[in-house]
Amino acid sequence: MFTHSKTLQFTARPERPDPLFAKMLQEPLGGQWGEISVMMTYLFQGWACRGPQKYKDMILDIGTEEIGHVEMLATMIARLLETSPVETQEEAAKDSFVGAIMGGARIEDTILAGMNPQHVIVAGSGPRPVDSAGNPWTAGYMTASGNLLADFRFNVTAESQGRLQVARLYNLTADTGVREMLSFLLARDTMHQNQWLAAIKELEEDGLEETPCPSNFPQELEKTDVSYVFINASQGEESKRGGWAKGPTPDGKGKFSYAAIKPLTKDDGTLGQVDPRMYGTPQAPLPAEAAE
Amino acid sequence: MFTHSKTLQFTARPERPDPLFAKMLQEPLGGQWGEISVMMTYLFQGWACRGPQKYKDMILDIGTEEIGHVEMLATMIARLLETSPVETQEEAAKDSFVGAIMGGARIEDTILAGMNPQHVIVAGSGPRPVDSAGNPWTAGYMTASGNLLADFRFNVTAESQGRLQVARLYNLTADTGVREMLSFLLARDTMHQNQWLAAIKELEEDGLEETPCPSNFPQELEKTDVSYVFINASQGEESKRGGWAKGPTPDGKGKFSYAAIKPLTKDDGTLGQVDPRMYGTPQAPLPAEAAE
Amino acid sequence: MFTHSKTLQFTARPERPDPLFAKMLQEPLGGQWGEISVMMTYLFQGWACRGPQKYKDMILDIGTEEIGHVEMLATMIARLLETSPVETQEEAAKDSFVGAIMGGARIEDTILAGMNPQHVIVAGSGPRPVDSAGNPWTAGYMTASGNLLADFRFNVTAESQGRLQVARLYNLTADTGVREMLSFLLARDTMHQNQWLAAIKELEEDGLEETPCPSNFPQELEKTDVSYVFINASQGEESKRGGWAKGPTPDGKGKFSYAAIKPLTKDDGTLGQVDPRMYGTPQAPLPAEAAE
Amino acid sequence: MFTHSKTLQFTARPERPDPLFAKMLQEPLGGQWGEISVMMTYLFQGWACRGPQKYKDMILDIGTEEIGHVEMLATMIARLLETSPVETQEEAAKDSFVGAIMGGARIEDTILAGMNPQHVIVAGSGPRPVDSAGNPWTAGYMTASGNLLADFRFNVTAESQGRLQVARLYNLTADTGVREMLSFLLARDTMHQNQWLAAIKELEEDGLEETPCPSNFPQELEKTDVSYVFINASQGEESKRGGWAKGPTPDGKGKFSYAAIKPLTKDDGTLGQVDPRMYGTPQAPLPAEAAE
Amino acid sequence: MFTHSKTLQFTARPERPDPLFAKMLQEPLGGQWGEISVMMTYLFQGWACRGPQKYKDMILDIGTEEIGHVEMLATMIARLLETSPVETQEEAAKDSFVGAIMGGARIEDTILAGMNPQHVIVAGSGPRPVDSAGNPWTAGYMTASGNLLADFRFNVTAESQGRLQVARLYNLTADTGVREMLSFLLARDTMHQNQWLAAIKELEEDGLEETPCPSNFPQELEKTDVSYVFINASQGEESKRGGWAKGPTPDGKGKFSYAAIKPLTKDDGTLGQVDPRMYGTPQAPLPAEAAE
Amino acid sequence: MFTHSKTLQFTARPERPDPLFAKMLQEPLGGQWGEISVMMTYLFQGWACRGPQKYKDMILDIGTEEIGHVEMLATMIARLLETSPVETQEEAAKDSFVGAIMGGARIEDTILAGMNPQHVIVAGSGPRPVDSAGNPWTAGYMTASGNLLADFRFNVTAESQGRLQVARLYNLTADTGVREMLSFLLARDTMHQNQWLAAIKELEEDGLEETPCPSNFPQELEKTDVSYVFINASQGEESKRGGWAKGPTPDGKGKFSYAAIKPLTKDDGTLGQVDPRMYGTPQAPLPAEAAE
Repeated sequence: MFTHSKTLQFTARPERPDPLFAKMLQEPLGGQWGEISVMMTYLFQGWACRGPQKYKDMILDIGTEEIGHVEMLATMIARLLETSPVETQEEAAKDSFVGAIMGGARIEDTILAGMNPQHVIVAGSGPRPVDSAGNPWTAGYMTASGNLLADFRFNVTAESQGRLQVARLYNLTADTGVREMLSFLLARDTMHQNQWLAAIKELEEDGLEETPCPSNFPQELEKTDVSYVFINASQGEESKRGGWAKGPTPDGKGKFSYAAIKPLTKDDGTLGQVDPRMYGTPQAPLPAEAAE
Repeated sequence: MFTHSKTLQFTARPERPDPLFAKMLQEPLGGQWGEISVMMTYLFQGWACRGPQKYKDMILDIGTEEIGHVEMLATMIARLLETSPVETQEEAAKDSFVGAIMGGARIEDTILAGMNPQHVIVAGSGPRPVDSAGNPWTAGYMTASGNLLADFRFNVTAESQGRLQVARLYNLTADTGVREMLSFLLARDTMHQNQWLAAIKELEEDGLEETPCPSNFPQELEKTDVSYVFINASQGEESKRGGWAKGPTPDGKGKFSYAAIKPLTKDDGTLGQVDPRMYGTPQAPLPAEAAE
Repeated sequence: MFTHSKTLQFTARPERPDPLFAKMLQEPLGGQWGEISVMMTYLFQGWACRGPQKYKDMILDIGTEEIGHVEMLATMIARLLETSPVETQEEAAKDSFVGAIMGGARIEDTILAGMNPQHVIVAGSGPRPVDSAGNPWTAGYMTASGNLLADFRFNVTAESQGRLQVARLYNLTADTGVREMLSFLLARDTMHQNQWLAAIKELEEDGLEETPCPSNFPQELEKTDVSYVFINASQGEESKRGGWAKGPTPDGKGKFSYAAIKPLTKDDGTLGQVDPRMYGTPQAPLPAEAAE
Repeated sequence: MFTHSKTLQFTARPERPDPLFAKMLQEPLGGQWGEISVMMTYLFQGWACRGPQKYKDMILDIGTEEIGHVEMLATMIARLLETSPVETQEEAAKDSFVGAIMGGARIEDTILAGMNPQHVIVAGSGPRPVDSAGNPWTAGYMTASGNLLADFRFNVTAESQGRLQVARLYNLTADTGVREMLSFLLARDTMHQNQWLAAIKELEEDGLEETPCPSNFPQELEKTDVSYVFINASQGEESKRGGWAKGPTPDGKGKFSYAAIKPLTKDDGTLGQVDPRMYGTPQAPLPAEAAE
Repeated sequence: MFTHSKTLQFTARPERPDPLFAKMLQEPLGGQWGEISVMMTYLFQGWACRGPQKYKDMILDIGTEEIGHVEMLATMIARLLETSPVETQEEAAKDSFVGAIMGGARIEDTILAGMNPQHVIVAGSGPRPVDSAGNPWTAGYMTASGNLLADFRFNVTAESQGRLQVARLYNLTADTGVREMLSFLLARDTMHQNQWLAAIKELEEDGLEETPCPSNFPQELEKTDVSYVFINASQGEESKRGGWAKGPTPDGKGKFSYAAIKPLTKDDGTLGQVDPRMYGTPQAPLPAEAAE
Repeated sequence: MFTHSKTLQFTARPERPDPLFAKMLQEPLGGQWGEISVMMTYLFQGWACRGPQKYKDMILDIGTEEIGHVEMLATMIARLLETSPVETQEEAAKDSFVGAIMGGARIEDTILAGMNPQHVIVAGSGPRPVDSAGNPWTAGYMTASGNLLADFRFNVTAESQGRLQVARLYNLTADTGVREMLSFLLARDTMHQNQWLAAIKELEEDGLEETPCPSNFPQELEKTDVSYVFINASQGEESKRGGWAKGPTPDGKGKFSYAAIKPLTKDDGTLGQVDPRMYGTPQAPLPAEAAE
């Protein structure tokens, strides 16, 4: 069960409206690696957790914090959209030179065209649950497998991709209010990368999981002769120069070797005859047929 | 540029047809963490790589191998579908008792209903580019950011989630042919988890990237007072018992602390007035208005 | 900012596992009219609200409650999946008659085939952010326009469609634990239908909005001669018998009339010439052309 | 069965081409609340109607009219795209100052970039079945439940959101031809809001349905002690000031009360043990295991 | 503008309900190659047509007919769902043996599990705008390019894939009423394949378009030395045995030749340096940097 | 199994960066008719082929070549994005006049707004698996039915739509490097249109398939009296002037006739009573009811 504090976790107030940056800021809100994705991912991982309570509590703590990050971004975007683009149009329209150079197109359309048009038409100057290209958020972005090592690896990724995107956005604005909020999100992403890395270490120390994940599957059932072979699938051997091609493997259970790709079978993928009632193309002409 | 060997990388031949398992085996083919996802992810990461050549070559080697894994799964599914369900229907229909217990429903429909119906209707006993629930594969599953640490973390995740799903599928079939192929995929997933972990270590040793990722963003620009604080957002402190709540942080740059969630601002998210030509709900009644 | 209570809002414990009902219960969790949809809809409407504070607070109160409903459904589904289907398989496999009647298909596959296979393969007996047919939740389901009357009408709809689905699900299970939770959701849907209807009345009484919505658009700018005409587009006049074809209109501003459909223009939709560099099909053959 | 009149229902001719407005006008064509959505929604509701004939006929009359609205918008967009952007480019390119200020970018690209590029590349100056951000229309937008009250509430919403968007678009163009068509659509939306409100009243008067919808579910089976309670999930009580917090409820069956959120259970959502063959994270280390 | 006849184009009445076949029959309604796809495709092609009137009229005639086919399928599915599955459950539940063999699962759930659960939960025994796997119809399936040859080729495909699916469905039911309707759809698909092939011939005879499409692009601007070469990308030369590897080409403008794949460039795809403010992985370590 | 050549099939190097054209060039990479679509389509058709080996080999040869085309486009887009937009911003920012005319918006935002923002934020100057409007590629675009005639018709379409789009893109850039690559793709599309047309002819000559496809379905089972009738669904008879309305049909099995649309049944689509436990709207009021 959840409760709401009317005060935000951190300030979300720009110096001035900027509808074009509002469009870009949709990425960390509703993009593949945005705050909705981590909020939903952590909440579902927590609700599905069958492991020790310290993990379940930890996951839900951060999932709950992320709802507040979605709130901060939604608020910031609403404020970046506060000056009516219609207003801006009218100001601009007074400059007749501008109209001229746009070759007959109206300057107000040009500014609007740079925006996400749904910020005006659909949301009336409000935030949208979409990414910076306007794609609606989808649950296809999130992950909760029941295996905490597999999931914590996803979480480290999400915090890395997320921090990377926020860092790029920091470079795309000079608004000190926006940068203030981004610097908060960057710091929390730093924490969360560290947190999930620490949690991975803890899982291993608790003896609950290790590489190769899932470690509870009996490894002798896998085709062990290819478990530690790097396969070179191109001409040239630049890929042989890395730590993945020789030496002990990170799981401490094998040694890397390096080999050219080759078939380990004579199976050429030939399929059997088509059932005539499927009307697929057969090896040779068949009489017409239907089920009775 | 790519070339094709007519022989598969590894055998993909079941003991016998099994249309219901064919549906399940779509998950590692066309699911969020299936072979199409890793194939496309690695190829795009490789093509976009601006780092040292050994990384680019390595990424494309594995990406190229994965095309062959897609081929193996597609072939296996086609073979699992080879006995016509229509045939099975006719056999089953002879057993009048069966008809009776299904309460008037036809047994052939019942078997078909357990299948992915598109295996028959759309693909005529062929594989589909979808997951086990029938959702088409989407590029929203893949990731290529240009930052190799962020991406390699994704890749470790993909190989972990993928191996987890294959291990579960191993338990859901007793077909020795299918299990043989799954044991090959399990082994390659073991390799690939190790490979990406080794590559992450190499990136760090090469001085190209480290935690917090992206490390090239000047960390003093983030809100450093919350960079290493675990925030407890629920009553109770079970989450305090983990390694993420105290001690040095994995990035070696800080120490974890633990604090209850609280607002760090007085900002309550109140927005400004609505532009009347947006027709949003205002604070108080407004006269009707339109642009001239 | 949000905080989490470890105790659920209401009990979510079934009498016994039922993986097939777990699939169906995904509809009110991740379907078009499920709890994720109302949670996200109300939160975004609240964060974007520029109207009086009582509305903003009310919307966020219910949005916050809905997060807890998502939690209850996720928990219930996890519990319905708790008995391993693998276990069930083994029990069933002992019954050789069963194997016989399924015509060679394994009974365990048949049971699994009735499940959402991703409950096993992807989530390892956990809930999924999808609907009962397995489609991932998408933000294309939600609505937040900035106009509270338009949005509250959506909200009444969502609570009606949602209550309808829960009522149908009530009929599809005999599990008293599941029914107990559904009876809680039904009651809250009753409240929320009433709540949004009361809020619509309040909006009108506060003079903020009325039919036709948006009321702030100057109605004289619309083509008023067709503002209150019912258009009969088929042969026969059964549609004339309803209250929408005669008498005063609900907005109190007109009277319904009834007329057969007919063109109000001579415009036949003919388009202009194609630009030759678009390579569309022209009226008559054109010479080959490209931009220089 | 349907027939087509070659004349449009209403004129759809702009004063002049405007490729940027063509992009925006995609919203009422192919957006969540656009004409394709209402066309498909009403047709499916009509075809699935099991209620009195007057309702079925009425629903299909309006569904049929909406096909013609899709036609009008498609035609208008095709005409707004009629001047080749390539032509415009050439005109613009003559102005060397323009080239200078764009920092080396070509002005024609700038204009094209403001367009939906698929209007040129994919459709060759034709309309697209997408919204203003370029997302393809999806049937996830439409609704047909078999319960006419639930569906008519959706229909009122659709006509409200639709009219709101058209009103905003009216403000974003000064083209008198476009505005003429929008004023027709605004008027029909006025009619259709009134029509669905009248139909809801009729359903109630006919004794077929009422609040809470579905009214045929025995209300004593719901958890009646929370059926009329407003739950305050945040600090502060602004939400107590509305008509949803006290007084009789709109369904005439209860009285609103107001209470702080609290758990109505001791259930803390703890799940049972994980099945070891799911390879989820357990409470404590387990030996490796697979199905035989 | 469109009008509706209350009588269907052809009978759509099954002998008896069959909820499992109703699920399958969704494919020709809402699948990639179903009737909604051709209806929308033809209507958009017609509305966007800038060629001779005989084509525009022909395209819209068939598009209008297809609306009626959607109606027939929707009606048939509603009728196949008419017996309540709940009823069927109760009948079945009397057979105690059945309960036994399902290992504790309820037989009614098993039947329901074979259905599309949304037929009950969402649509209340009505049709759904989805395919046989439950995926919502999307406009990503349709095509309207403005070039009639490219589009008519799509249309021949759609009628071929569609007829193929209907033929397969004919084999999956023994219901004479359903087969009667399918035999009508098969005949119309026969007509429409012929119709689009005839239209392609006419386009060529009218001099409006030919192979390679678009023929109005000056062919000398293409890299003509590879315009008629079959490229063998695998070991072995089975592909040399076909008519695509030798002899005159169908466009009458060249001769097929056959060659092994090889690079026609020395370009190895190496990219330039990463911009440091993108935080991508560079060739060598860089100092931390941000925009000022 | 596949192997990779480090050298591209053809040069993919622009004269100069152009982030706006990079956005447009996403269409032939990740659009409905882009190279990912044909790559995946041909690979799946080949892997599922049950016909003669010459077809299977041919299909996989071209599928393999297409992987290399995806590589070329991905490389070209990465290079078009190589100059940092941030850099361009700074240059532009020096021109104070520009800032003035944009009405307060920053010029760098204006340029960025014309880009696909994900090229910067998500991919860090790399290619994206999306179309020119930013929609992620989906497997809903591809087709593999098992019937080679149906599929080859799709393939001709794909090469036609693809060549059409590339021709349009040729007109939208003046960059000689980009045009060089496009001229290569245009030539290969010419080849591939011819190739699939030749393959269709071969299928017919081999007696494997013909019109109406699938030809193996017994044509006497279709409703033959409407197999060759053109149905006029609108007033006026322009559609009578084409070759589809008279004369022998392309399949050589009939003659076209022309008739006005009319119902061939008295079925008016009326449905049966609603099951009361579905809570759909009935013909007349019913008592409340639930399953026991």
